[in-house]
Amino acid sequence: MVVLGVDPGITHLGLGVIQVEGGRGALKAFLLHGEVVETSSKEGAANRVGRIYERVRAALEAHAPEALAVEEQYFYRQNELAYKVGWALGAVLVAAHQRGVPVFAYGPMQVKQALVGHGHAPKEAVALAVRGALGLKEAPKPSHLADALAIALTHAFYARLSAAKPL
Amino acid sequence: MVVLGVDPGITHLGLGVIQVEGGRGALKAFLLHGEVVETSSKEGAANRVGRIYERVRAALEAHAPEALAVEEQYFYRQNELAYKVGWALGAVLVAAHQRGVPVFAYGPMQVKQALVGHGHAPKEAVALAVRGALGLKEAPKPSHLADALAIALTHAFYARLSAAKPL
Ligand SMILES: [Mg+2]
Repeated sequence: MVVLGVDPGITHLGLGVIQVEGGRGALKAFLLHGEVVETSSKEGAANRVGRIYERVRAALEAHAPEALAVEEQYFYRQNELAYKVGWALGAVLVAAHQRGVPVFAYGPMQVKQALVGHGHAPKEAVALAVRGALGLKEAPKPSHLADALAIALTHAFYARLSAAKPL
Repeated sequence: MVVLGVDPGITHLGLGVIQVEGGRGALKAFLLHGEVVETSSKEGAANRVGRIYERVRAALEAHAPEALAVEEQYFYRQNELAYKVGWALGAVLVAAHQRGVPVFAYGPMQVKQALVGHGHAPKEAVALAVRGALGLKEAPKPSHLADALAIALTHAFYARLSAAKPL
């Protein structure tokens, strides 16, 4: 199974594509592609979102994932931020819809549960689990890419249990 | 000047296209197209946003506006809503970017200032001004379409004063 994980953001959007190995044991996957799309408030909203769309679309075309997974976002007293992160996710959703790729979303506790085994694991434990599952010598960087890969692996975990969570 | 006004929303998104007449007197325009795109939480996020994208794209192709204008959104303690309205605007921005149409945004007070002449006018006065500027016998309905037309007229007003406000 190929999964595209997305860490949504308007200044930094992480994209990670993994190929998940079959079998019922520990989750094993390898990294097919990782990038962080960076945009600036100087370039205008449509340009920012249009560029995000193009990168997501390119990743979908190059790797033909069977699922796209995003982390659910929680915003506390940050409406402005929520709105702009929403723009970025809108572009992701347009690209997924055009390619017919189903979209899934998991909350931070579900990520921790899937990758570490309990919902209150520290961030470092998640990073270690991502590194282990992907067989990497070092933790993926930057953090936006690590988050995108974590969410892709999380989808693989729940899909294997027939507990995938459509957005 | 042809302007596409958008009232962004995830369950209801208003689209209004106007042709603005030249000249320096009172703002005069006529309605070329109006619709409200409705989506449901039952149909999945990518489908909702993908359909919004397709309608905006169709309006841009059919009417070739030289500008797209949206109302700035303010959300108070409604992060979840802000995020989802953001998805819708993301789709709008992708469509505008693909067609090379510049995007502008105005706040509610700027709309009132432009259409009624002072920033604290009641909603009814705005509706009356929209009706007058477009030469309509009745106020446009539903409210999401009226809002989309108000924002299109607002852009025409500020563009004429060389005070357009890019998003
Ligand atoms: Mg509305």
